[in-house]
Amino acid sequence: MHITGITRNAVELAADRISGYIRRTPVVEVEPGLLFKLEGLQHGGSFKVRGAFNRILASAPLPAAGVIAASGGNHGLAVAYAARTLGVRAEIFVPEVAAPVKIAGLRAFGADVVITGSIYAEALEAAQKRAADTGALEIHAYDQPEVAAGQGTIALELPEADTVLVAVGGGGLVAGVTAALDGRARVVAVEPARIPTLNAALAAGRPVRVEVSGVGADALGASILGEVAYQTVAGKVESVLITDDAIIEARRAMWRDYRIATEYAGAAALAALRSGAYVPSPGERVVVIVCGANTDPATLADG
Amino acid sequence: MHITGITRNAVELAADRISGYIRRTPVVEVEPGLLFKLEGLQHGGSFKVRGAFNRILASAPLPAAGVIAASGGNHGLAVAYAARTLGVRAEIFVPEVAAPVKIAGLRAFGADVVITGSIYAEALEAAQKRAADTGALEIHAYDQPEVAAGQGTIALELPEADTVLVAVGGGGLVAGVTAALDGRARVVAVEPARIPTLNAALAAGRPVRVEVSGVGADALGASILGEVAYQTVAGKVESVLITDDAIIEARRAMWRDYRIATEYAGAAALAALRSGAYVPSPGERVVVIVCGANTDPATLADG
Repeated sequence: MHITGITRNAVELAADRISGYIRRTPVVEVEPGLLFKLEGLQHGGSFKVRGAFNRILASAPLPAAGVIAASGGNHGLAVAYAARTLGVRAEIFVPEVAAPVKIAGLRAFGADVVITGSIYAEALEAAQKRAADTGALEIHAYDQPEVAAGQGTIALELPEADTVLVAVGGGGLVAGVTAALDGRARVVAVEPARIPTLNAALAAGRPVRVEVSGVGADALGASILGEVAYQTVAGKVESVLITDDAIIEARRAMWRDYRIATEYAGAAALAALRSGAYVPSPGERVVVIVCGANTDPATLADG
Repeated sequence: MHITGITRNAVELAADRISGYIRRTPVVEVEPGLLFKLEGLQHGGSFKVRGAFNRILASAPLPAAGVIAASGGNHGLAVAYAARTLGVRAEIFVPEVAAPVKIAGLRAFGADVVITGSIYAEALEAAQKRAADTGALEIHAYDQPEVAAGQGTIALELPEADTVLVAVGGGGLVAGVTAALDGRARVVAVEPARIPTLNAALAAGRPVRVEVSGVGADALGASILGEVAYQTVAGKVESVLITDDAIIEARRAMWRDYRIATEYAGAAALAALRSGAYVPSPGERVVVIVCGANTDPATLADG
């Protein structure tokens, strides 16, 4: 199968489809020229609900078995939330590394939760087997055009900026944002050095498997970049890597200086700025996408 | 001395004065018709910096001894932040009930901290004695026209709404908001039943002393409404009382449903809605002012 990237038009269609179901999350200029898009306030606590709604709404009529997903947590929460909102059954497969707060959240949204596999890829394999058995609609965490287009709707809500910093796991968000902006702003793709899916793909000329570890693993822990993402972003984004220490420092600073509660993945984009992995020019207007807030708040103050 | 209330004009002048120093905090529509003004993202973690900047900037030239304030915490943080920003010395008197996170924050902002007295009124008395000795400019936590006018600038940043819900301690914020709105929206003044400064003042026809207790005490724990507030809001606001349980429930819900980290005072306005103390009409557009986020995040999930 030949896979192509997604376009701004696909993102605009997604925005029309999902607008009645998502929150338009706020943007705040925390310092002159530094803006945060506070997507942790989204339903389900992250941007993932955008892609989940778009995939479900684009796939009607749905099978009787409902929807199925594998997820480190945020995608699962999003699918569970979207399914409940639309009155559809949801079955969510999560790897054992998923944060307890996310598993509890899945159950609170009424999903059937299956905990299996030590990493995301194993949970995904189990979910796909199950989907083949039941006929449920699979909602991939990132590698489906409807998912990436849904995630990209976040970029249609941004004010004018020179640069948008976005964290990368499997690449759904960065693909959607890159397609939506379509050259209107520079996209800086930020990854933990311990989960360099995009960086490795760009180096190899195609998505390749990487090791997954570190503080970003529960939300950014894909072991390979999606094909949709690769086809959408190759040649169009700047890839930077950051340390786990930089992520921890940025998350702590977000609480201390702004009283924003975020998960590690939500602090990754800011970490690129604070650590100097990405250095804006004087006067450059930079948007940091704070992509999720599903964290144990007890850990905010001490990092 | 005859004290009069403040006007919208005073608030507009304050906005001009402080605009280069404060963050324009975001508003998010979390449910249809329900909007949050996220003032916890303000410098110092609460709205208080608005009044502090306005009082200092309106009082130039400043005495060599700098500024002095008594505070349950948020006002002190705000004065310390504003003083540091403007290069002025700040001495802050706090009662023993102040949250440890706030005292640490005061010191981080470079203020000289004096912990004295079991309640706010005692810290205030000590601060006023000290100001008389040193000639420092006193910045009252609420009962000065410049302070109330500064707090009111928050209301100039709100979208159109039918109703604005605002928590009341000593009344600086509710006075500023009422003056700023000047009839453009209904103001609902929300107080813990265990600290009913406004409710008691309206019943008595003048500010009267009340007992101070409960979860709101560290941020809303004034023992008497300010004269400025009384003259500004009497006859112009709807006063409602809420239980501590309602505040605790609302704070927990704000984290669970919106991933907003707030202190108890910051959840009080929403508590009036969730507990039914204030019931909007169908279609009524309601803004809840989330006035502060200086809390121990470890307590967010369990309330």
